[in-house]
Amino acid sequence: MSSTAFKTLSAKAAAQLDKELMSSGAFSIDQLMELAGLAVAQAVYKQYPPSKLLSTEKILILVGPGNNGGDGLVAARHLKLWGAYDPVLYYPKKSTKNQLYTNLLTQLVDLEVPEISTIEEVKQLVIDKNVNLILDALFGFSFKPPIREPFDDLISFLSENHSKISPIISIDIPSGWDVDNGPVDVDINPTMLVSLTAPKPCADKFIIGHPERIHYLGGRFINQKIAKKYDIEDLIKKYKDDQLIVKL
Amino acid sequence: MSSTAFKTLSAKAAAQLDKELMSSGAFSIDQLMELAGLAVAQAVYKQYPPSKLLSTEKILILVGPGNNGGDGLVAARHLKLWGAYDPVLYYPKKSTKNQLYTNLLTQLVDLEVPEISTIEEVKQLVIDKNVNLILDALFGFSFKPPIREPFDDLISFLSENHSKISPIISIDIPSGWDVDNGPVDVDINPTMLVSLTAPKPCADKFIIGHPERIHYLGGRFINQKIAKKYDIEDLIKKYKDDQLIVKL
Repeated sequence: MSSTAFKTLSAKAAAQLDKELMSSGAFSIDQLMELAGLAVAQAVYKQYPPSKLLSTEKILILVGPGNNGGDGLVAARHLKLWGAYDPVLYYPKKSTKNQLYTNLLTQLVDLEVPEISTIEEVKQLVIDKNVNLILDALFGFSFKPPIREPFDDLISFLSENHSKISPIISIDIPSGWDVDNGPVDVDINPTMLVSLTAPKPCADKFIIGHPERIHYLGGRFINQKIAKKYDIEDLIKKYKDDQLIVKL
Repeated sequence: MSSTAFKTLSAKAAAQLDKELMSSGAFSIDQLMELAGLAVAQAVYKQYPPSKLLSTEKILILVGPGNNGGDGLVAARHLKLWGAYDPVLYYPKKSTKNQLYTNLLTQLVDLEVPEISTIEEVKQLVIDKNVNLILDALFGFSFKPPIREPFDDLISFLSENHSKISPIISIDIPSGWDVDNGPVDVDINPTMLVSLTAPKPCADKFIIGHPERIHYLGGRFINQKIAKKYDIEDLIKKYKDDQLIVKL
């Protein structure tokens, strides 16, 4: 029996499942990222519903260079469209070759989502608590160390100040963590994790001994055949009704 | 003041808005269709929640050759994934050139959604009430008469038997209706309409004098700038919280 109540997928298995979805499964990355980002946004909404006292909830979106960043861009769009959140982007390493990311950014520009460009501005915003929430969309399950600049500085900063800053919500894995083994030297210490498709092994380390931490599952697009193959049938049964997310 | 409580978009304006979303708006058809189809599925779920008595709710998905059909394919996938519905496809005119539709169909085949291939089977299923719901994803706002075979026969059949068959839910417009002017000679007489982005003018005819008819709005992806340009700001304000649909 596993040490946790949920099945996890190793970095290798998660990569294989993703590849399968987009080859024989015939899903496009646009489709999957839209559903994943929407699930993240709904988990944020469910866990941190917009305050009745403030007109909008400020949320800093930290966007990495790959698919985890793309999920963050989609989540930011839905949060902004719902009218109750006020996202601010930090997206320092934009891909110039990936049209999808360029498009997702354009969609945010059209929504007048502001962007900050220096790490100093990020630090100021976070330390002054001028954001109520921080969405960590830096790295996902394909992350391999070392952390490159400017993300090394950013993750160290969040790690050193974690007791003083607003809650961090990580998409799929806490950025900088080893996907299979958990925290390394620096630990951004998120309050909440939204696992996509299935939790990765480091989600065990996120939960065990931390009953205060919050864990959601999103990415409800796995059919029975794939669920069986990857032994996550019990996991996808946890979703209720027409919900795109479930609290684990 | 308009004769209805909601603003409508003419066929021409709707086509222009869609074009704008996919050009300067930088949305892909995959993204928009995913969100539209998901909204349709959630509206079906909300209005016709799965019976507590039956294990699954059988729903016939009538799929047309264009984007309205694509929305239906996406809706069928989500309904099937949620486990409470049992969709059956009728998709007689498959595009061989459009990779997106081919992919959406593959996703349904992988979910073991059955397909019936003749109009005789459709008629039998409907007349025997072996389906509890009928999703009309035949034609959308770009439809122009005449109705071609086999859809002419199908729509006549649904029209002639409307008092005897299960409820019909139409996506965007009741198929066969004139987008701007409403019912023509044959009228499939849907119980429910899910307008996408904004109701089309024929939605007026759907509602006026028919208080028993149900009308939802879905497709929550319009930013303020576009909403203002097309004068649908009041309409998109109707959405609540993080909901992708709203009952009008």
